[in-house]
Formats: sequence, C-alpha cells, structure tokens
Amino acid sequence: MTPVSLEPNQQSTTTTITTSNSSQLPFGEYLFRRLEQVKNVKSIFGVPGDFNLGLLEHLYKTQLNWIGGCNELNSGYAADGYSRYTNSLGVLITTYGVGELSALNAIAGGFAEYSKILHIVGIPKTSVLNNEVEKAKHLHHLVPNIDSLKRSDHYVYTKMVKDVSCISKVLDDSKTIVEDLDQVIQAIFKTSRPGYIFLPLDMADALVDASKLSQTPADYHLIKDNHPLKTEEITQKILELVYKSKNPSILADVLVSRYHNATELLREFVDLTQFNNYTTFMGKSILDETNPNFVGDYIGLESNIGIKENMEASDLILYFGSYINEINTGHYSFDFSEDQLILLHPDYIKIGSEFYHGVNFVNVLSSLLIHLDSSKVPTNPPLQYEIKLRFPYLPSKASISQSHMLEKFESFVQPNDVIVCETGSFMFGIPDLKFKSNVKYIAQGFYLSIGMALPCSTGVGIAMKDQNSSSRLILVEGDGSAQMTIQEISSFVHYGLNPIIFLLNNSGYTVERIIKGETRDYNDIKQWNWSKAFEFFEFGDEKNSEVKIVSNEQELTKAFASTELNPTKLRFHEVILDKMDCPWRFHHMNGYRHLPATQ
Amino acid sequence: MTPVSLEPNQQSTTTTITTSNSSQLPFGEYLFRRLEQVKNVKSIFGVPGDFNLGLLEHLYKTQLNWIGGCNELNSGYAADGYSRYTNSLGVLITTYGVGELSALNAIAGGFAEYSKILHIVGIPKTSVLNNEVEKAKHLHHLVPNIDSLKRSDHYVYTKMVKDVSCISKVLDDSKTIVEDLDQVIQAIFKTSRPGYIFLPLDMADALVDASKLSQTPADYHLIKDNHPLKTEEITQKILELVYKSKNPSILADVLVSRYHNATELLREFVDLTQFNNYTTFMGKSILDETNPNFVGDYIGLESNIGIKENMEASDLILYFGSYINEINTGHYSFDFSEDQLILLHPDYIKIGSEFYHGVNFVNVLSSLLIHLDSSKVPTNPPLQYEIKLRFPYLPSKASISQSHMLEKFESFVQPNDVIVCETGSFMFGIPDLKFKSNVKYIAQGFYLSIGMALPCSTGVGIAMKDQNSSSRLILVEGDGSAQMTIQEISSFVHYGLNPIIFLLNNSGYTVERIIKGETRDYNDIKQWNWSKAFEFFEFGDEKNSEVKIVSNEQELTKAFASTELNPTKLRFHEVILDKMDCPWRFHHMNGYRHLPATQ
Repeated sequence: MTPVSLEPNQQSTTTTITTSNSSQLPFGEYLFRRLEQVKNVKSIFGVPGDFNLGLLEHLYKTQLNWIGGCNELNSGYAADGYSRYTNSLGVLITTYGVGELSALNAIAGGFAEYSKILHIVGIPKTSVLNNEVEKAKHLHHLVPNIDSLKRSDHYVYTKMVKDVSCISKVLDDSKTIVEDLDQVIQAIFKTSRPGYIFLPLDMADALVDASKLSQTPADYHLIKDNHPLKTEEITQKILELVYKSKNPSILADVLVSRYHNATELLREFVDLTQFNNYTTFMGKSILDETNPNFVGDYIGLESNIGIKENMEASDLILYFGSYINEINTGHYSFDFSEDQLILLHPDYIKIGSEFYHGVNFVNVLSSLLIHLDSSKVPTNPPLQYEIKLRFPYLPSKASISQSHMLEKFESFVQPNDVIVCETGSFMFGIPDLKFKSNVKYIAQGFYLSIGMALPCSTGVGIAMKDQNSSSRLILVEGDGSAQMTIQEISSFVHYGLNPIIFLLNNSGYTVERIIKGETRDYNDIKQWNWSKAFEFFEFGDEKNSEVKIVSNEQELTKAFASTELNPTKLRFHEVILDKMDCPWRFHHMNGYRHLPATQ
Repeated sequence: MTPVSLEPNQQSTTTTITTSNSSQLPFGEYLFRRLEQVKNVKSIFGVPGDFNLGLLEHLYKTQLNWIGGCNELNSGYAADGYSRYTNSLGVLITTYGVGELSALNAIAGGFAEYSKILHIVGIPKTSVLNNEVEKAKHLHHLVPNIDSLKRSDHYVYTKMVKDVSCISKVLDDSKTIVEDLDQVIQAIFKTSRPGYIFLPLDMADALVDASKLSQTPADYHLIKDNHPLKTEEITQKILELVYKSKNPSILADVLVSRYHNATELLREFVDLTQFNNYTTFMGKSILDETNPNFVGDYIGLESNIGIKENMEASDLILYFGSYINEINTGHYSFDFSEDQLILLHPDYIKIGSEFYHGVNFVNVLSSLLIHLDSSKVPTNPPLQYEIKLRFPYLPSKASISQSHMLEKFESFVQPNDVIVCETGSFMFGIPDLKFKSNVKYIAQGFYLSIGMALPCSTGVGIAMKDQNSSSRLILVEGDGSAQMTIQEISSFVHYGLNPIIFLLNNSGYTVERIIKGETRDYNDIKQWNWSKAFEFFEFGDEKNSEVKIVSNEQELTKAFASTELNPTKLRFHEVILDKMDCPWRFHHMNGYRHLPATQ
C-alpha cells in the first residue's frame, strides 16, 4: 500500500459522508451493510492505502470491526484463518498494486485450500480507468507498459488473479454494482474459493438502491440443490450399497468443513450408522475422534500401521468432501478399487463407475440422513488389523524430541481447543494424535506456504472472539516460518487475544535439511532472541503474558501443565529441538533415509 | 516457500555433484558461473524451497555468496537494492508458487522503476511439467484448476508475470538453456527491467556445454549502438541546437542511473558544458550537487520557488534518462513547449517534434561527448529567479519537526554517503536538500510500496560490501513501513552491515492521515517498543550497536554528531514526531489543505 494519493477529487480527512434514510446509500456503506448480514462476518481485515481510504470511511457506519494487519500478506493469511474458523467469508481489503500483489500468495493458498476469501482491492476512479484523465497516464502503484510509448494498462493486476479466484469483477458501473457484489459473494460460497472485487475509488460514494438489504436475505451459505431428482437417485443408489455392504467405512476430508453445515451432518451420519470412520491428513478434526468407531487418519502409505489395512479392507468407502491431491493422499498412495468407492465431492458424486456431475455432496448427505433406514444398516465388524504407531519414539540429539512432544501434546489438548499448526515437520506428527471432543485443527496441509500459521491464527483468534468463544487458541509454529511473518505476533496483543504459542526452535529450515543441504547455509536462519519478542512487541507485564524457554522434558511437562483452560494471558514457549529432529512420517515421506535402522 | 519435497528423484542432503573438467557442466553450476562473470554480481538473494534446493547446491562451487532473506518479499526488495546500487543484476531465487508469488510485489516495483532483477524460480521437474507423472497431478504449492475435473496447470504462475517482466523463460530443454539464459540476461540489461527464469528441478543437473564461459564475454551491461547513423544524425542536430541556444539546461532523471556508465558520462557532459543542471524527484543524486551550476530538483509545481521558473525559462532543455510519470513530474506539472525540449530516453530520442525510435540515450550521450566543441558552447547566463524553500519551517506539535530534521540532515550527510529512504512523508522533503559529492540516494519514488526500504537497504549494504565500499549506509524509515518488513533488520547483523537507521515514529500512517482518516483506527498501527529491537533481533552488545530515542532537538543534534565516518556499529535512532507532521511538499501535493495560512 502506499500513502501518496493525488486523486484530485479525494476529500480531506475524516469527512462525514451524509447518508439518506431513503432507499439510497453510498455503495461503500451498502457493501459493508451487506457483508454485515452475511452469517459470521463481524470483522474485516486489511491494510489501508490511498485507493481504499474512501471505502474504509464507510466501515464506521456499521458494526464491523477493522483489523489492520502489519502487511498485506499477513492480512490475507488472517482473512483465510477467519474464513476457515467461521466457514464464512474472510474479507480482505488492500490497495492497488502494492497491496493486492503482496497478498497474492495468501489468496493462492486460499484458492488451493478452498477458503472463502473476499478480496476487495481499491483501484483508481473510473475516469482514470477510462483514460479520461491525461494526468493519470502513468499512475503511482501501477507498472507501466513495457513499451514506453504505450499507456499503462489499468487492468494489469486484475488479469493476474484469474487462476487464483472463482470470480473477479471490476465494480465500475453504479447501475449494476449491487448485483455484481451479490454475484461475487454467491460464487465464493458456491465454490468455496476466493473472489475479487476491484472497486474504483469513486464508486465507494456512488449512490445505489439499498432495498435489497431489507428484502433479499443474505443466505449465501446455503447450498441450493439444483438437481433434486439426481440427488434422490444418488441417495437411493448409495443407500442400496450401504445396506448390502458388510464392512463399510466413512472417510472425511477437508471439503466437508467448507460447505455450510456438512460437518454437523456428517457427524450425525457417523452417529447413526456407527460405521468405522477415518479422516484424511487435511480433514483432521472434522469427525469426533472420541467416537468409538473413529479409527484414525488415513493417508495411504503414510498412515499408521493398521489404518491403511483396515480402511482398504472395507467393501464400501463413503469418501465425503474429497480433496485428492499429492499431500492429502500420502503421495497418491490411496489404494481403492472403483467398486469400493463412493466419492462425494462438491462438484460431483461418483458411485463406482457411475459419475454424476453438478451435484454437491452436502445435498446428498442431507438426503442420506433423511432416507437412511437404520434398521438396514450393517453392523460394523471388529477391525481386522491392530492399529499402532510406526515409530512412536524417534531419538534426538536434543533433550526433547518431536516424538515425545507429540505424545505429551495429545494429552495437553483439551476439548474445544482450536489448534493452528504451521507448515513444517510437526504437522506430519499430528495424524498420530487422537483429539478430544470438538477440537478444531487448522493447517495449510496442501499449499504449504510457510509463515501462514501465525497471521492465520490472528484471524482465527478474531473469529473466536467474534463468536464469543472462550476456547483456547493454540499455535504451533516453527522458527524459520515465524521469521517470515513475525510482526503479526503484535496483533495478538493489539486485539486482546491470548493464544498459547509453541515456537519449535530447531535452528533453521529442518524440513529442508532432511531433503537436501543438511549443513548448507541456505538452510540456516538468523539467530533471534525469541523470548525478547514480548518486550519488543509490547506484550506488557507478567499479568498479560508469560514466556518460557523449554529445553528439557521436565520443562515441557511443566509448560503443558501450567496453561489454564480460559487463558487470561498470552503464553509463549520456545521449545529447543535438534536441527534434524522430525516426526517419523516426515522421514517416511522422504524415503526413510534418515530413519533409525531399528523399529 | 515450503519444505515438503516429495520429488522421488531428489538426492539426499549435501550430495557432492561431480563436475567434469571437460567442457560439460551441470546447468546449475553453469548458471552460477555465468552470473559470476556478470559485472558486479557477487551475491545472490533468496529463500530456499524444495523446488530450488537442487539448484542451490551448485552455488557452492562458485565464489558467489548466498544471502538468505527472512521471506521472499524481503529478498525481492533486497535484490532490487543490490541492482540499484551496482547498476547490475540483483539475482533472486525463490520456489514454486508460495515463494515466487510472495516476491511478486517486489518484482512489480522493480519493473515500475527499471530495476535489473533476475528472478529464478525453482519449479517441478520436466517430467511433471509434461504430465508424465500421474502422481504429481495435483502437486503441493500449485493451485488446482477451478474445474475440479481438470489437471492442474503447471504454468499458471508463469503466466502471471508477463506484465511485470521484460522476458520470462521456462528453461526446460537442455539443448537450448545456455542460450536461453543469455537471452534473459541480455533482455534485462537492454530494458533495465526484471526478467524471469523458471527452472525445472531436474534441469539444475542437466549437463550443458560450458565453452561459452571461456569464449563469450559476459558484457551484457554494454549498450550496443544498433543505429550508428541515426546516433550521428541526432548528435549533430542536438549540438546545433546547443550551439544556438542562449540559456540551455540539463535535466537528469532516474534512467540515467540504470544504463551502463551514463551517470559518469552525464557528469562529464555537465562539467564540459557548465550548463545549469537539475535533477528530477527520482533522479536525485545522479548529478554532482556541489557543481556550481547545479540548481536543484525540478518537480514542476512541486519544485522550490525559483526552480520551476528558471528551468522553464531555458530555451533548450536536455532531458536525459527521462521517466515521465505522475509522481516524478509533480503530477504532470512539467511545463515545457515542444521546441524547448530534447528528450533522451532509452527507447527513443525526441528533438522538438522530431522522433527517433530505437535509439538509446547512452549512445547519443557518448557521441555528444566525442563531438562536442566546447568553444561553441554558450556561456550560462546567471539564474533569473532566486531559489528559495517554499516552507522552510513547518510547525509541529512535537519537539522535532520533519522540517527541522531535514535541515540538520543536510549537513549530517557526508560525501560518499549512501541514503536509502522509505516511501513516506520524509521522502518529499529530500528535494529540498543539496547533497555533498558522490552521495547516492535510493528510493522507490514512483511505485511507492511501503516496507521496501528496509530490506532494500540490506541489499544495498551487501552490494557496498561486495564492492569494498567503506561509505556510510543511512536508512530513513517510517514506523508503519518498518512494521511491514521489520524481520529483515536482523540481516544487517547476520551479514555484518552497520547502517545508520533513523526510524521516524509518528504513530501510524501519517501520509494517509493527511489524505483521509486523521483519527481513524485504520491509520493506527500497533505499539512497539522499537528500541528493544536490538535484544530481540540479537544485535549484540554496545560494541556492535547503539540505540537512541531522539525526542528533542538537542538529542537530534547529538545523534547527527555522534556517528563516525566509518561506522563500526549499527546505529538505530527512533525519532519521535507528531502524527500530522510532514514536509511542506506533501501538504502541497495534497492541495495545501493542511499548510499553515502564513508563509
């Protein structure tokens, strides 16, 4: 973002924009009032810039909170976190060029992981876009054309987002912007993907008909069934197969958590059928892991012993909210035959070889619950294969190993905890854990952009606050990743959040050391005195925050024991680990190269 | 960037890649050896990731230094700074998706400001790109297709950089990659714009013919004259006009500093002609400001009193390295007639109404120096208009105002100092200063992305070290901007740099408060205890660093007096300013709204 605005028509500071009580409103106000009506939207993220200040002024006529980020990438990650927690919109506002581009990696991550981010970019006023202003030919924040004789292209950034958004619209026509806004929000909920609004500076003040606010419900989150007959047919086919099956299983994947109430519906389905149930790597925590029939996390060849064998021995697998990708499938090591599998995806349903396009699994799931005849449901046979960890304790040169930490972490995590886990080696230990009831686990398990978790957790924390949750927010962070986005740690204090942070200090990019360059300096990071973060970022005194260096098991036990269930202060633990220490799964993924010979 | 690499063919850690002494080399080694031959390239910037580790291994067979950044945006800014200081390549290495996208705003800034950044992105191996690997269908770091039934497009990111680069090539054919590399570097020097190399993981190890290393000089920085006859014709026309003129002037703009030895040539031309000479806002410090005929910075209506009047009274203006854009022209307020003006641009020369396309001003400048007959050159008449500051002292609610600080700053700056100035209000006071000899001033005066200056100055500092410069590096930074990219402050320590930092703490986004929202919370930033940066980022003890809070004039005087000419420690000054204090020019640009009524 940039400060230098030279738009001649811009008003001076804190102008009060008069709004009539009639059915007309300035579009900026209309926009925020509409967003306020969207389920679970109470806060807006972003960074101001001269092309969005005019819009931001309208925010103050609503109850929405402004959550300013230290930079746009961080705000993008925070909006993603807000969306993941609320299963609604995470709204991000940035400015032309400098702001929107800085956030692009967060948007791409949201796209790759089905996050409902609405990215609103403030752009120049319509007369500039239409080249009516000669003096704005080469405008600040805008890259000029490579051909120095040509005008700058005001839409150069707009074009860049085509493949990382489900929809993008330049809202430059006051006659259609109300409908345009609706279309963008609808598309975001329909696809669970980021969408873009490019808003010219002058359009924030353009008067629009506001009658929609009172007449048309903002029920974007509902998944309409466009093919009820197909849904009916699919339901019957699935139920027939279910009733015939002898050893059926349920596999829950991440997209369940992205569509309306699918998580609740699926949990109900699990309770009703009592089928053995599993989650994927990315689907972790969608199911109730205290359910007696919850088996564990199925990740193909990267599963724990027995999980793969039991899952693949099922004669029918109901795979809900499937997201088939490299990481989530244990590098494409899921091993099912077509006959075994029912794929229930937001875009299609696949029953054996039969393919139904355009049907969302949520509608099928609702229908299954309505039509299920519990008396016909087969009784689960006992699991054929014993489940056990592959490598429960991997040795480490440091006093604490990640293996030990994971074991203790399992009992540390309490019901209703919200865990945000950074991309890194620890993430690959999480599938070994069983969570207590209503734990929510958030991680970027496919796109894997390090630095995401810290700002993401500020967004999650804001969402929890907005939903009046008193649950604990736990952030597991790496040292290399934390350096990417560390400034956002101050947002915890600024917005009164009290996360419990575990910073795993393993002196650099451990995951990469395992892959290549164990001793190379490109895998080293700068030395920081992490525990001084509290003084630099103004965490206040001991009443507000507590910092601990954890370098042995006793300190770890103490750290896990000392946190209360309703945290009243921010807690920060720097856990000292060895450079090459990883959970077994990460070694396993990399061809067992560094695993101990025994076990 | 992400750590999780699952490329089956990747080797384990620190593999020694055997290289033959014959004419064949692995391309990764060839690439770095070729870069090593490019004038002034001694360090490489970036962040490791699983798709570039294979390439990075080859770096260790050369003398090039690896400068790891805390994140990719910062490394991009640092590469930009390196390029600006060296007038050569700033090389940036990032990884697929997560890394390259994070750096995109830095690249766009480099494009907008003619910076020679070579961005090398590690991408998946060729068999994956060619869709020969079924298991890589949906690869981590890669956004999938919005149509869930389609494969991911491996070139989705490659397409995004079209309008922010002069060239981009996927180097996927070992038979052509040596030529491809050359073409990319040539294009970067020819256009002084960023260029992209997308390097598949396996191509780093592909054997290529290395004979070019010893046979073809890496003289990319030389500007070839493709139209010597045109150059000759232009030279004669210009000289005729020069000899005829009565009151000629020279205006030096930023592009002079971007092409080979144009700065030296232009300074020579100034010395020979003794014409009155000016620089633009972005061209600041290109000319020797101790030259008796140096008048000042011409920024149209935003110039100091007398500068505009004198400049526009010239009957001939030789405008070298022109970059005509909104900010640089004082919002298009340059006021010349066509007859007065000779535009000397890298892509064209314009003499009055005559237009010559495809001629670079550097060749014309060389030719002018050869053919200039000093005896025919008119003698400069004295300046007609007195030069004075518009508002030398703007009052402030704080003890120190930017106006006072600027005045003291002028005498603080010593010959050979290198100044990096952040986008912000202070930047608009700089044109009021006259620099001593050989001061180098670096700022992003058109693209204006806040947060750029701090990481940029790490790149500048590395470049100074690489060139064995013992000059002082001065960084002027804002508090809001510093929060964007603060982590890179630790790179100063990590790489042994000793900048003198002035952090102007005005409690938020002052520039924006002037534009809109003086008291709005969107212009507030989080409270940090800046002086504790030293403990958190491990600056060591008083021998290595010194921190001072500067809140009154006496402390400011002391701060400016206490820094030695060959700094042996990093010095950090937090200067406390009022929220609404700005140099006069920034108020002026915004329609005088906040200027005091007097003056």
